[in-house]
Amino acid sequence: MSKVKLDVERIKHQLETVANRYNSGEKGYTRLAFSKEEDQVIEWVAQELETYGARVRTDSIGNLYGTIGPDNAPVIAFGSHVDTVKNGGLFDGALGVFVGLECIRVLRDQMDNAEVAFELVIFKGEEGNPLGGTFGSRVVTGQVDPDEFDDSLLESLGVTKEEIRRAVGTLPEYKAFLELHIEQGTVLEENDNKTGIVTNIAGISRSHIKVLGTPGHSGTMPMNSRDDALVHASEIVLHIHQAVKKYTDGTVATVGQLNVMPNLATVIPGEVELTFEVRSGNQESIDSFEKEILEWVRANYHVKIIPGVKKKASKLSESVRGVLKEAASELNLPVMELVSGANHDANTLTHHTEVGMLFVPSIKGISHNPEEDSDWAYIGNAAEIMLEALLKYKK
Amino acid sequence: MSKVKLDVERIKHQLETVANRYNSGEKGYTRLAFSKEEDQVIEWVAQELETYGARVRTDSIGNLYGTIGPDNAPVIAFGSHVDTVKNGGLFDGALGVFVGLECIRVLRDQMDNAEVAFELVIFKGEEGNPLGGTFGSRVVTGQVDPDEFDDSLLESLGVTKEEIRRAVGTLPEYKAFLELHIEQGTVLEENDNKTGIVTNIAGISRSHIKVLGTPGHSGTMPMNSRDDALVHASEIVLHIHQAVKKYTDGTVATVGQLNVMPNLATVIPGEVELTFEVRSGNQESIDSFEKEILEWVRANYHVKIIPGVKKKASKLSESVRGVLKEAASELNLPVMELVSGANHDANTLTHHTEVGMLFVPSIKGISHNPEEDSDWAYIGNAAEIMLEALLKYKK
Repeated sequence: MSKVKLDVERIKHQLETVANRYNSGEKGYTRLAFSKEEDQVIEWVAQELETYGARVRTDSIGNLYGTIGPDNAPVIAFGSHVDTVKNGGLFDGALGVFVGLECIRVLRDQMDNAEVAFELVIFKGEEGNPLGGTFGSRVVTGQVDPDEFDDSLLESLGVTKEEIRRAVGTLPEYKAFLELHIEQGTVLEENDNKTGIVTNIAGISRSHIKVLGTPGHSGTMPMNSRDDALVHASEIVLHIHQAVKKYTDGTVATVGQLNVMPNLATVIPGEVELTFEVRSGNQESIDSFEKEILEWVRANYHVKIIPGVKKKASKLSESVRGVLKEAASELNLPVMELVSGANHDANTLTHHTEVGMLFVPSIKGISHNPEEDSDWAYIGNAAEIMLEALLKYKK
Repeated sequence: MSKVKLDVERIKHQLETVANRYNSGEKGYTRLAFSKEEDQVIEWVAQELETYGARVRTDSIGNLYGTIGPDNAPVIAFGSHVDTVKNGGLFDGALGVFVGLECIRVLRDQMDNAEVAFELVIFKGEEGNPLGGTFGSRVVTGQVDPDEFDDSLLESLGVTKEEIRRAVGTLPEYKAFLELHIEQGTVLEENDNKTGIVTNIAGISRSHIKVLGTPGHSGTMPMNSRDDALVHASEIVLHIHQAVKKYTDGTVATVGQLNVMPNLATVIPGEVELTFEVRSGNQESIDSFEKEILEWVRANYHVKIIPGVKKKASKLSESVRGVLKEAASELNLPVMELVSGANHDANTLTHHTEVGMLFVPSIKGISHNPEEDSDWAYIGNAAEIMLEALLKYKK
């Protein structure tokens, strides 16, 4: 067990100070992707890294890299993002960055004769944004084509095609990438608030279903003559919600978006558009459930279906998971394996290097919301496992 | 049977000519309440009435009255409205006015020694509008308080408080009021396209139900931990739709309006607002079903309920219904009695005089829509019954 100690109070103080200083929102925290506030936090971390003696650089799209240790050694990277959704919480993304910053602070004095270097990374624009979520990590791992974007859209976000082009595929070679993040779910809380080790990052498949009915006057159309699109859509919502429960591998399905037309009290709805989303760490479950539901919907209703976002499920590195488990075991801290239902920069990095993720328990699973919260005792557990794992890589 | 003949072709030609000439819409017909187009049609009818020798006047809010026959005799009035919803159909409202105009044309030569006068009325602003539907008829029957309206709202519609005040309660005494209107439902079509005689005009009761759940990340919240407001709302929609079918008196219930919050594909809905509406010709059914549903919703879900519009069901005049049935019988035209699910100026007039309504079959029940349609053969039947009933009053 390491004698090197993290200062959890310092993490808390830094995170809260910075989040309150650079906030454009009225409720919770608002540091949107490509906003001034996102850049201000990155700049603050860059300055702090310099006081720790790290070698700091940003790339052409503003991702930040702070490195300690030998110049030509294998690099163990870690980090996350600092942008938030509108009126988001304190922890999503930023927690992983400030824990990483503290790791750099304590590791910088441990680098004599080190055979690896450590690099803290902040990826830009991870949350949903007009250029797509996990933007910064997708650009530097070569998963973005700058020509797919409209110039005026880029201009409105303060990014140029040339800046994106210069950053494409520039991420250094890493031996491993680790991301610490809040769970944003309730699995850990329901399991004694163990620290989570992520096995898979869920894939996502969305379909936009337009349910057609026949509009009519709400006062004059007898019940048995009605072809009410909202009644049809309600059946579809309930069927999806029930049918997905037969999966025992954590597959989830949601109708989060639903619009009624014409949406007037006096008119029987003639059309309803809804978004059917399925997520799972198991790609086979995504494929089979999506097929089952779309076939059922087509067989029973008059619908038009437009495919939406499709992201394949990914598996994280068994070797990194092994290092994390060993670190936790040496610290005598309980962990459990789980699937990440949310997407993360870590998912993007699976195309580039060995990737591991640590999850901190979330209180009531609330996230993307001012009420987002985690207990600092459990944050401390995950941070200690993170540091211990990094020390193992150093040996 | 009367030897006086209506010219259905003339009604069709006048209605189509005027509707196409004064139309601000791209699809169907748009002559909104208080629009230039509504006034233009009223002005056209006024001119035509003058060529028929009718005594024509408008009141201070623009309702039109065209009278034939002796000055101090009891008045049999008939009419409807000429405003439409946005992108409405050809028939709703205007058909009753143009059939009425044709009745004036053929009756003007029959008025020697008549003991009654006939008056065609066009009421302003019957469709939903910022001052409330059935506006013109409510003002002249004293059911509107001018002081309830905001001055700037009135100004935007080109109406003044003083004009409303001058019209309040000015409707002349009528012996009876008859309105011919399209059914806007499918009851007559399903019954051999008989002409309808309205027994009751349905009451309306609306409640705005806010269904509360817990928002969450669509990827991270296990199915069994969810408190999805859209799943709850879907159950409520289906329960309302099924439960109302136990009524055999034509009671109908509709959720026409439903809004999801935050309405994002990635967020489990935390809140859904929906409008629960029940309509029936039988006020007891409205009261009992509303009570049953609201109790069931309160017992099973976390909700906030705000009462909406409440309009009592009204019963039309048995004596006018008798005259209409007798007229149809003499013409050998089949009729059936039914409830009007929609509200009409006729409903307002029940506070003022004996009221009767004739319904023309609608094709597929479609209304408030460019597809609204009726067969001119069935329009002819209803128009003939209308004229025959007026002749009976004249005797």
